Amino acid sequence: MSNLTLPEYEDIRTAYKRIKSYIHRTPVLTCQALNRMCQAEIYFKCENYQKTGAFKIRGATNAVMSLEDQEVQYGIATHSSGNHAAALAQAAKWRGIKSFVVMPENTSRIKIEAVRGYGAEISFCKPSLKAREEGLNEVVRDTGAVFIHPYNDARIIAGQGTAALELTEEVPDLDAVLAPVGGGGLLSGTSIVVSHMIPGACIYGIEPENADDARRSFHSGKLIPVKNPDTIADGLRTSLGNLTFALIKNYVTDIISVREQKIIFAMRHIWERMKIVVEPSAAVPVAALISRRSEISGRRIGVILSGGNVDLKSLPF
Amino acid sequence: MSNLTLPEYEDIRTAYKRIKSYIHRTPVLTCQALNRMCQAEIYFKCENYQKTGAFKIRGATNAVMSLEDQEVQYGIATHSSGNHAAALAQAAKWRGIKSFVVMPENTSRIKIEAVRGYGAEISFCKPSLKAREEGLNEVVRDTGAVFIHPYNDARIIAGQGTAALELTEEVPDLDAVLAPVGGGGLLSGTSIVVSHMIPGACIYGIEPENADDARRSFHSGKLIPVKNPDTIADGLRTSLGNLTFALIKNYVTDIISVREQKIIFAMRHIWERMKIVVEPSAAVPVAALISRRSEISGRRIGVILSGGNVDLKSLPF
Repeated sequence: MSNLTLPEYEDIRTAYKRIKSYIHRTPVLTCQALNRMCQAEIYFKCENYQKTGAFKIRGATNAVMSLEDQEVQYGIATHSSGNHAAALAQAAKWRGIKSFVVMPENTSRIKIEAVRGYGAEISFCKPSLKAREEGLNEVVRDTGAVFIHPYNDARIIAGQGTAALELTEEVPDLDAVLAPVGGGGLLSGTSIVVSHMIPGACIYGIEPENADDARRSFHSGKLIPVKNPDTIADGLRTSLGNLTFALIKNYVTDIISVREQKIIFAMRHIWERMKIVVEPSAAVPVAALISRRSEISGRRIGVILSGGNVDLKSLPF
Repeated sequence: MSNLTLPEYEDIRTAYKRIKSYIHRTPVLTCQALNRMCQAEIYFKCENYQKTGAFKIRGATNAVMSLEDQEVQYGIATHSSGNHAAALAQAAKWRGIKSFVVMPENTSRIKIEAVRGYGAEISFCKPSLKAREEGLNEVVRDTGAVFIHPYNDARIIAGQGTAALELTEEVPDLDAVLAPVGGGGLLSGTSIVVSHMIPGACIYGIEPENADDARRSFHSGKLIPVKNPDTIADGLRTSLGNLTFALIKNYVTDIISVREQKIIFAMRHIWERMKIVVEPSAAVPVAALISRRSEISGRRIGVILSGGNVDLKSLPF
């Protein structure tokens, strides 16, 4: 599989065989309080418990483990301020190769330490996409490392789809599956799996209203990126790529956006009632469920809780 | 069994049969980061996931369900600002009887709402033990409700012991079990079970240094209560009763105290690494493990994570 072709269901099966000895099979939890509130049965795939604290390790491990020895002899590289950087660094460590991460200089201390803890070499840049890409090009030129894109890469998408593989194996008769959408790696991988495993099930991508490029792109039929969006859901500030957009157009039922206050309310509900730590991005689909609970009465719904990496020093409560 | 005799292992078995259809069998989790840090195998019994958010529902349900119809015809009553009140209210609701709770007027809104949500009639009093007891006497006199003590009661102790029953069934070869100690209901129930199920295993009670009545009582051999202790672990501000003290003297290996800063560090570690929400009291035994990690290398240790009810608006981070 080239990293620039559209992955298919079989690619996700192959990815799962490749990565399953490295990752956790995360639990599927339910919440009686939320089920009562929505009069529905909601199944949470808890990727906040995943290695490195987010689903990103699935795609990163698939990408790193599927490269030839010769390709990775000088290591791998990416630019990221978040979970993809930590995931790539961990996957590189497992494979015994070097990893290089370009991070904006205003990245929080806790995230820098996490990435460094997994063994990456970090270089800093100004906090703009342009500076990040320039920084990355420089690292690749200097080191010979291979760039692995955080989402617009078939191997990454195939890896992210494995969370839905586990979820649909465990709860095979869902009416709908919801995933957050930023760059679209998780949503597109999820949509390939769900449409294959449960034909007829609906697949929704949920994003912050303040970063609603996916909704506008989906409804207009052409890619409309968003620039420096202001949302608490820091994992969803990126815009779709051409691969993820093509898959989402193929398989996804609709894209729904939610307001910041609803995201914070949902995050708080999850912490208080489910007693689990999730990051704001993971609360985004739950915000949609709560906002539209009259529409889901009686349904069985799967939700990918994407991650649990949050700075306890800056909570929105 | 009278509520004023010392419960035995068989009483805990009986309690478990009585309550198990009402409560959750909570999961036992592990944390690779903590195991690596301590070079030990630590098994967490996650009572933060329990109904009403804490182990207290075990004892409350056992007490409420073991009373005769005639005894509870006018309901049950207690004074509490915390988890015992919510647990009693829920157990009374299950049995279809009234519950009355006397709460200090400075109790946080979130706790008042929880207790009210489970259907209790609340009356408020000044924030002192004397005012709480007076308020309770008045409620009992006016309503005819039966008082159920939060810990110095054989039925409560027997119920709290069922968490250790599940833990030792699931992980039968532990070298030691740790539980937090406030009034001693959880620790004494745990100690009966562990000494019966795993003869030779050590049993430790852990408490905040600022509320170390159990340690001082244990080491001096006589009850030394503490008055209005100042600790973040709000579930552990109470002092031992004569029943819980007698059991602790019989079965517990030692009582260890930990400093406030260590409690906060442990709580933060649990939130950040295990991605679960626990209250400060639940972090107290983990603080002891981290502080004394050189002493537990190579051991298999069970910890009761007592609850997860915390006000997200006043976190110590």
